[in-house]
Amino acid sequence: MGSLGDTETALSDDISFLLARASALSVAAANAALAPHGLRARSYSVLTMVTEDLRPSQKDLAEFLRLDPSQVVAIVDELEKRGLVERAPDPADRRTKIIVATAAGKHLWAVAADAVRSAEHETHAAISPGERTRIAEILRGLAFPTE
Amino acid sequence: MGSLGDTETALSDDISFLLARASALSVAAANAALAPHGLRARSYSVLTMVTEDLRPSQKDLAEFLRLDPSQVVAIVDELEKRGLVERAPDPADRRTKIIVATAAGKHLWAVAADAVRSAEHETHAAISPGERTRIAEILRGLAFPTE
Repeated sequence: MGSLGDTETALSDDISFLLARASALSVAAANAALAPHGLRARSYSVLTMVTEDLRPSQKDLAEFLRLDPSQVVAIVDELEKRGLVERAPDPADRRTKIIVATAAGKHLWAVAADAVRSAEHETHAAISPGERTRIAEILRGLAFPTE
Repeated sequence: MGSLGDTETALSDDISFLLARASALSVAAANAALAPHGLRARSYSVLTMVTEDLRPSQKDLAEFLRLDPSQVVAIVDELEKRGLVERAPDPADRRTKIIVATAAGKHLWAVAADAVRSAEHETHAAISPGERTRIAEILRGLAFPTE
């Protein structure tokens, strides 16, 4: 087989395959940038959502991040053990627990967000800022199709 | 938390997260379309590459599809057991094995490719053909960054 980028295959026009491969590369770069902070792409995503005071339940996190509920429980357990998040009763429905960031969690998130942004700029150095905006817009359409 | 698409979060502008979520949705749709044929997105990708006479080794498949070598071995084992692919010595280097599709494998691939295409049209019904071409082009850039 020849070099990867030049390989002629029906997969080169397969949106599902292209998304999977682009995502694998992007998550690997994010994981490398996050490793010094003890985070990975998935735990970083959880930390982002709880830092923003969205007050998500574990179910909300699983749906938004498209993770298995069991994966979310494991991630929240780990973040809680590190003192970065807490489970609290939902004021709107006290039978439900929501996840909130601690001060330490918010601080770590800010540092990690910088690392992720730098890594992304490096990974996508060939993309102009205008092109990046357009790419994000297209990906939002694919990630959140209108029902 | 409000409805998913309207949720305001830094993740909505995070290329890595958007790729991961779009990919998860797309792979789930592909898996559903492929299930009646006993395939999943990953085994379908392998079958595509071997059907096209690219004559990939297991290492080639792992690199192109960004899978663990152990995942590729498991997929090739399963396809071989079903009589869809064969391991053959590489004429260029007989110590290496390449993977080739059998006639049954090529036949199943053609049927599965139709199913995947129909599912994709349904999933992305809101996207015009011109827009789809542009999206595929952008995703190719992200999936195969120029080194």
